[in-house]
Amino acid sequence: MPTLLQLDSSADLTTSRSRALTATFADAWTALGEDHVVVHRDLHREPLPHLADADLHFPKALRPAGSHVDPAAESLQAGVIAELLAADVVVIGVPLYNYSMPSTLKAWVDHIHVPTVTAPFGDDPTQPMKGKTVVLMSTRGGAYDAGTPSEYDDHAVPALSIVLGAALGMTVETIVATRTLTGRFGGPSGEVEKQDAELAAGHERAVAAAKRLG
Amino acid sequence: MPTLLQLDSSADLTTSRSRALTATFADAWTALGEDHVVVHRDLHREPLPHLADADLHFPKALRPAGSHVDPAAESLQAGVIAELLAADVVVIGVPLYNYSMPSTLKAWVDHIHVPTVTAPFGDDPTQPMKGKTVVLMSTRGGAYDAGTPSEYDDHAVPALSIVLGAALGMTVETIVATRTLTGRFGGPSGEVEKQDAELAAGHERAVAAAKRLG
Repeated sequence: MPTLLQLDSSADLTTSRSRALTATFADAWTALGEDHVVVHRDLHREPLPHLADADLHFPKALRPAGSHVDPAAESLQAGVIAELLAADVVVIGVPLYNYSMPSTLKAWVDHIHVPTVTAPFGDDPTQPMKGKTVVLMSTRGGAYDAGTPSEYDDHAVPALSIVLGAALGMTVETIVATRTLTGRFGGPSGEVEKQDAELAAGHERAVAAAKRLG
Repeated sequence: MPTLLQLDSSADLTTSRSRALTATFADAWTALGEDHVVVHRDLHREPLPHLADADLHFPKALRPAGSHVDPAAESLQAGVIAELLAADVVVIGVPLYNYSMPSTLKAWVDHIHVPTVTAPFGDDPTQPMKGKTVVLMSTRGGAYDAGTPSEYDDHAVPALSIVLGAALGMTVETIVATRTLTGRFGGPSGEVEKQDAELAAGHERAVAAAKRLG
């Protein structure tokens, strides 16, 4: 059963573009056949707690002597990791909040990146998600165009790419929709049209990616 | 009464370097005189919730028609902002977790950046923290040296600098201590010594900054 893990993190339950894009991807995935499963984790509606203890960044064998981690926190983390490992493809809604990812999504990242469990460490090459694809639906209120001063002001996608790409070995694809606040607050001539066009293209790319990856 | 707001976000309550550095700063601040006050918010021990509603990114006047925000969440946000506005200087412990800030600190950022309340918007120049200083105690497990491939892999300080510096108008100072995991996991020759030297210099700089700013 080809399994998609769909993660949403937007705090906007009604007009979120990132939620719309992950939904489009999930719908296209489901349409591929009855065997295509979607596991949906809504990190906003049912948030993970902040990481309970810095020792959870590492497995038991790599923790300091005398470390004692709350078993409930460890069990929660194990469940979140198991859910990730069971996925064939992952799609993540990544709205840009204050130039980085929502705290809900960051809490997930802090739970799933564990050397020797999901990522290599020293001579240990463990990388169970290697070669699987994660699609980031990156939505941003403003414009972050190449060649402008804000080009590198998105600190969500780069951080996710290091963890999911470099550390976990996943293939990271990104579908970007910018200027999402222009419809509400206006903007220079043509900006609203650009927003609409990018979003429409994003939905098309989401459908195409689901068909290709499923 | 010169007031310091001390924020900690490390999930390590025993060996955290970022906590040690903010504590050094706070101790030096207190030593400046009995009138020097420290307000300490521990974002790990008493975490803020994730932002309850995307509408909280904006004040009422800038929210969509029909928006209804939970009054309790709004009240919590107002208190966090009032605490910030009452500070003359802010010091923040910023441990790097998975290449960006801890979710606990991100939740704080998502609560305090509100156009027309703490930051300008359009023709409204509101910027009550303008000219005040925030000192970021940036601690990182690995090395992020200039000229190496990981030079730009820290996505915590840049995102904080945009919000606190560019948006809120604060003067952002950064005290960095890298290689904090070398003592535990070892590293190439000389790395542990570099870590020790950076940390010691960080404590000296923290004391000097408190004296200069207080």
